[in-house]
Amino acid sequence: MNLADIATPAFALDQGKFQRNCARMIEKCRSLGVGLRPHMKTLKAIEAARVAIDPAHGGIAVSTLREAEYFAAEGIEDIQYAICITPDKLPRAARLMRKAPRFGFFLDSLDAAEAVAAFAKAEQVPLRAWIEIDSGDHRTGLEPSDDRILRIAALLAASPAMLAGVATHGGHSYGAPDTDGIAAIAEEERLGVVEAADRLRQAGFEVPGVSAGSTPTAVHMRSAEGLTEIRAGVYMAGDLFQAGIGSHGVEDIAASVVATVISHKPERNQIVVDAGGLALSKDRATSALADDMGYGLVTDLEGSPAFGRLIVAGVHQEHGEIQGEDPLPFDRLPIGSRVRILPNHVCMTAAAHDRYLVTAGSEVRGEWDKVGGW
Amino acid sequence: MNLADIATPAFALDQGKFQRNCARMIEKCRSLGVGLRPHMKTLKAIEAARVAIDPAHGGIAVSTLREAEYFAAEGIEDIQYAICITPDKLPRAARLMRKAPRFGFFLDSLDAAEAVAAFAKAEQVPLRAWIEIDSGDHRTGLEPSDDRILRIAALLAASPAMLAGVATHGGHSYGAPDTDGIAAIAEEERLGVVEAADRLRQAGFEVPGVSAGSTPTAVHMRSAEGLTEIRAGVYMAGDLFQAGIGSHGVEDIAASVVATVISHKPERNQIVVDAGGLALSKDRATSALADDMGYGLVTDLEGSPAFGRLIVAGVHQEHGEIQGEDPLPFDRLPIGSRVRILPNHVCMTAAAHDRYLVTAGSEVRGEWDKVGGW
Repeated sequence: MNLADIATPAFALDQGKFQRNCARMIEKCRSLGVGLRPHMKTLKAIEAARVAIDPAHGGIAVSTLREAEYFAAEGIEDIQYAICITPDKLPRAARLMRKAPRFGFFLDSLDAAEAVAAFAKAEQVPLRAWIEIDSGDHRTGLEPSDDRILRIAALLAASPAMLAGVATHGGHSYGAPDTDGIAAIAEEERLGVVEAADRLRQAGFEVPGVSAGSTPTAVHMRSAEGLTEIRAGVYMAGDLFQAGIGSHGVEDIAASVVATVISHKPERNQIVVDAGGLALSKDRATSALADDMGYGLVTDLEGSPAFGRLIVAGVHQEHGEIQGEDPLPFDRLPIGSRVRILPNHVCMTAAAHDRYLVTAGSEVRGEWDKVGGW
Repeated sequence: MNLADIATPAFALDQGKFQRNCARMIEKCRSLGVGLRPHMKTLKAIEAARVAIDPAHGGIAVSTLREAEYFAAEGIEDIQYAICITPDKLPRAARLMRKAPRFGFFLDSLDAAEAVAAFAKAEQVPLRAWIEIDSGDHRTGLEPSDDRILRIAALLAASPAMLAGVATHGGHSYGAPDTDGIAAIAEEERLGVVEAADRLRQAGFEVPGVSAGSTPTAVHMRSAEGLTEIRAGVYMAGDLFQAGIGSHGVEDIAASVVATVISHKPERNQIVVDAGGLALSKDRATSALADDMGYGLVTDLEGSPAFGRLIVAGVHQEHGEIQGEDPLPFDRLPIGSRVRILPNHVCMTAAAHDRYLVTAGSEVRGEWDKVGGW
């Protein structure tokens, strides 16, 4: 089977690039003396997890309970739901632990910790909580110096629940000006979460896990001292935004959407493909960068940028409008011809598809089912 | 079952508002003396189609072949794939006609018409093609005065394929300054597609269908003379963008995402919910309007704007950051509490979910399965 013969739009993952990306990050973590916990919110397929998992660690992160349930059913025992839990989700968490005994979740409030402790007591289930630390991203998490960290640990310690560790996400690395800036945020991330772990240990609590990460900080991190694991996801598939901020090269991007040319408008210098906002996602991450890639960069079916700087400049639900040099290569891209489109933000793009085609060049080597939804 | 008890995030559709929206558009079309072909790309469920279908017309539009296959399997015979066809999709189109004998597709080029005519001859199948007309949206379609329209009709006439009609989409109505501007675009849309039909008829071709539409032009259209049908979709569920341009009121929005509060940051005046860029979509349509609604407007579980102008100002994959008055209503929105979020663009938001909860206030009356993907 070849990408020329499939139904479009479809998500295609270059197997060789994906495997190299995974091996490189495992090696990077090994060189830092720390384990890698791949975040499978990027590629929600067990076959992807089997390649991405660090043999020295064994665990994964996820961002929905349905992802956790899927990977637990596939036999993965160490699953971190890297989102703050709420009381209503605790019965699902408890059920998850029957299959994945090392399932754990984030929390960042006394209210959630009280609910966890109460549920653990009532149901006699050893729920595992990671206290989320805000190391500068200011999304969720407590400041490393916040005393609620100790009070949460005390609440857990007085119940059958346990403290799995402390965890942070240096998402603000996405806005760093350069790789030195990213390295500085990686250090902030490390120091923040290690400070929280130290304070807990000084107060007498055991802190098994110290978790930090994002793709940019993992790539540019210079020291992992005090961390037990790095958490990252996008690196495995790669995308234009990460390429734009120097996490990898454009040639490392394993992810793409295969599309078919459906309309020509030479008078407007426009080519339209059958991949629009649903198949590509409306993520516009690269609009923040010097080189705005619209909704994606168009390559040939082998994944080579054979058309130069050809981008999807506009999308409707199922239409993508291609723009670039004037005139566009209408002769090389007749109606019915095929292209690949490298995405801005692979997590959003991959999530829109219900399977991944695994490819070597334009050859389809396999098809991976995946999980989606909540 | 109540929305307070479901797993979040989830897509919830207010049944009463949905039914009223559908009835109102059917009545509008009846008053214009034209049939309504609801575009089911907005709500991809057979239960939604059964309410939306105009008894005086009977057909629907879709934007993927998988949607067409799903609705055909459910017994709908008149299905318009409102996207330009390509040669590779013709075998699927031919298979579709076995279940949906009035299945048809768009095309806007001689190349596609030649492929359709050749396939129809080779397989002896009466493929049904709508010639797409560009009435000002400049996405796909031929100008009404383009002579290729006649040449396409001639190609089809010389084969077992047939001309189903001419069709246009006045998508540029989304950028009109006011309702008079939208009414003017509705007239452009009508005149463009009627001109194409007239030219074809003068040349001796039969033109059974003359199709135009978008939600704004359908709402504000003053004459449908010469049209056989109006095509629209968003009106049935409603969204903040359509409310912003006057297609309906905010109180008519039937679509919402139910979310749970997962984190509080009083020091940053921020509340975080478990609905992010995947559950809401990253569509930012309202950013073009005077009143930018971020990624959605927060209401209570009944769907009332009980918190004033509270919006989702930022999203990550599974996090939504709520902003509004300072201080936010932290006491009324404790961790674990529930809100509904009205979407910017319902088609994008609904597509991200694998089912729709059908509600009356906060009560869940049912759950509709739906189709997705390609």
